[in-house]
Amino acid sequence: MSEQAATEAEVRAVAARAREAAAELAGLTRAKKDAALLMMADAVTDAADSVLAANAKDVQAARAAGLADALIDRLRLSPDRLTAMAQGLRDVAALPDPVGEVIRGYNRPNGLEIRQIRVPFGVLAMIYEARPNVTVDAAALAIKSGNAALLRGSASAHESNAALVDVLAAAGEKAGLPADSVQLVPGTDRSSVSHLLNARGLVDLVIPRGGAGLIDYVVRNSTVPVIETGVGNVHVYVDRKADLEMAVRIVVNSKVSRVSVCNSAETLLVHRDVAAAFLPMITKALTDHGVTIHGDDAFVARGAVAAGDDDWAAEYLSLDMAARVVADLDEAIEHIRRWSSGHTESIVTADLDAARRFVARVDSAAVMVNASTRFTDGAEFGFGAEIGISTQKMHARGPMGLAELTSSKWVVTGSGQIR
Amino acid sequence: MSEQAATEAEVRAVAARAREAAAELAGLTRAKKDAALLMMADAVTDAADSVLAANAKDVQAARAAGLADALIDRLRLSPDRLTAMAQGLRDVAALPDPVGEVIRGYNRPNGLEIRQIRVPFGVLAMIYEARPNVTVDAAALAIKSGNAALLRGSASAHESNAALVDVLAAAGEKAGLPADSVQLVPGTDRSSVSHLLNARGLVDLVIPRGGAGLIDYVVRNSTVPVIETGVGNVHVYVDRKADLEMAVRIVVNSKVSRVSVCNSAETLLVHRDVAAAFLPMITKALTDHGVTIHGDDAFVARGAVAAGDDDWAAEYLSLDMAARVVADLDEAIEHIRRWSSGHTESIVTADLDAARRFVARVDSAAVMVNASTRFTDGAEFGFGAEIGISTQKMHARGPMGLAELTSSKWVVTGSGQIR
Repeated sequence: MSEQAATEAEVRAVAARAREAAAELAGLTRAKKDAALLMMADAVTDAADSVLAANAKDVQAARAAGLADALIDRLRLSPDRLTAMAQGLRDVAALPDPVGEVIRGYNRPNGLEIRQIRVPFGVLAMIYEARPNVTVDAAALAIKSGNAALLRGSASAHESNAALVDVLAAAGEKAGLPADSVQLVPGTDRSSVSHLLNARGLVDLVIPRGGAGLIDYVVRNSTVPVIETGVGNVHVYVDRKADLEMAVRIVVNSKVSRVSVCNSAETLLVHRDVAAAFLPMITKALTDHGVTIHGDDAFVARGAVAAGDDDWAAEYLSLDMAARVVADLDEAIEHIRRWSSGHTESIVTADLDAARRFVARVDSAAVMVNASTRFTDGAEFGFGAEIGISTQKMHARGPMGLAELTSSKWVVTGSGQIR
Repeated sequence: MSEQAATEAEVRAVAARAREAAAELAGLTRAKKDAALLMMADAVTDAADSVLAANAKDVQAARAAGLADALIDRLRLSPDRLTAMAQGLRDVAALPDPVGEVIRGYNRPNGLEIRQIRVPFGVLAMIYEARPNVTVDAAALAIKSGNAALLRGSASAHESNAALVDVLAAAGEKAGLPADSVQLVPGTDRSSVSHLLNARGLVDLVIPRGGAGLIDYVVRNSTVPVIETGVGNVHVYVDRKADLEMAVRIVVNSKVSRVSVCNSAETLLVHRDVAAAFLPMITKALTDHGVTIHGDDAFVARGAVAAGDDDWAAEYLSLDMAARVVADLDEAIEHIRRWSSGHTESIVTADLDAARRFVARVDSAAVMVNASTRFTDGAEFGFGAEIGISTQKMHARGPMGLAELTSSKWVVTGSGQIR
């Protein structure tokens, strides 16, 4: 997993080839794209041995470099994981084609017919960490939405990603996709990312997927448009009118069902009117699930570790939760407006006014009422597939499916109209 | 019109106040916003004397600095122009409120109700050149879409813009808008723009409106999300199956009806099969309108100036037009893909296949068939108002109305669902 540099010319050459491919991909029928995705699915299964061998090299290097077990586990492929990747490709093939959808269409008084049509972006670059399944997911979603894919995984997964891209690209070409529809970006060090972020005019969109450090680096250094994804400092607020049993279920599910993902809850806010009743319940439930609570005085009095600003700001991604009693709904909203990363927040309440005020004033991609924060997810939203969860406000916000990987074009048809 | 610096702290303080205002603005009813817009309209008319006096200072300074007459004309306000600004505010008041629109809404098998709702961005910054009417248009569209406006006009219009913002802000507050809903960004030099572009987390969206130099500077230096607008190297292609009389009308209208705007045509491409018949017609028509043609050999043979790559790349914004004969439709498409700024292109043809291929392969915000390129315009599209024309693919493409000034939020309502 030593990092390798790539020159700007090398990166731009790959991007320029992707651009050529994109011009062809944009016009492909759904039938052709689906056929290619199904052929890619078969190819991933057929090439299991060579992909697993490449992956074994990555795992060995990661172990030698002393990577944490959890990271090695995310890196490791297995026949089951390859089967799941192949199924992912088939699932994407089964989804409707977003390209060509008429978003708006109407005629003007002068007889002009105006249609806003969904079109591919062109060249889509993904910059991501660790899990090699992102390679396959991103390629599938890019192809289905008519975009060429430039994939830039982490150095630690380089062998696995290279093997997977070889398999996908070969199968795609066999099925009639343009060459260079799916490519790995050369280089595995930060300079190669930097060249990619400067390839304005060649790359249409960059989506970073990974930790806050990666995302911040991309946002600050890209001249190519970026969609930020996935940093989640997620809150659950238990209102004075909450069903407390429901609140325990929602808080526990939001926190512990999968701690390493961006939609898992990190901070609990409790209305003071229900604190006396709720704190014993939730402290016990979270502790039973192995959660360490980082709390204010009220929670410390029940055994929590004392929390500071670092805790309110933290995206723990672990069995830790910050917790605080608030004076009222507005103090909860204030806390969220100050500390949230704008991903997902949930209110537990039976009070319609409180729910409406929370929904109106909390400025996050997803706002839940009486539901686990874990539902902010492409599959749970019914998108069928997801390339990430946008935490920005421009273009896409929340789970991003195929439609979010498209732009639009206005087609205006007349019979000689002039102004 | 001497330029004044502003410190980063000053710019951030203004942005932070806008952020406070935005939190309130987001929740205002349409009735309140419309009432404020109507009060602003009256205020602009009532304050005509003081605004015109401020404008006279700008005009005097511009004259002293030796600004071109055309620029001074764009800068100069008159009672008629103020009346038009007031009418613009009333027109925006009459438009539907984009905020709260349910973009998508459905229920999931587990009973969750999922709704994607249109919400304001928050703080919208406009950076623009010359014309003070943009100050009023931008404020109107920002308020109507629930956003706080940060306005940064050019140094040459500083007195006019400051007077207009004073009038708008006072009227808005009187009508119950939060203080700081509409503010001028302090400073008139580039460093103050730079502070604005670094105010990530305080400013949600920057829209530059002006020349290619300004837009390029903003795109390359902003950490805040940007929507590029309005650079138009616009093409008209006359196909072998074109109605040549119609083609003359469309080319002339596209070129000469208003040369200084981004949707006016800059390059003419002619299929060689109709060159012998069409070149005499179009050369005469353009020359009669005072257009200088910069052409290839075929056009030079009819009196044009010889064109080079600079001409294919030029956004003239003047009575100049580049012109070339192409071998076929695909050569026209190739030319456009290489040189276009992605704003608008038009094909004149009676051939359905040619029209479909042109529409499919030309990757521009607007593609016209048998219509003048001048129709790429918010009013002509029926938007009622326009803040600019996006030439990027992310978030908005083509004319931007109120909907394009909004983001969205997912609201998920349940009854205790967990995963």
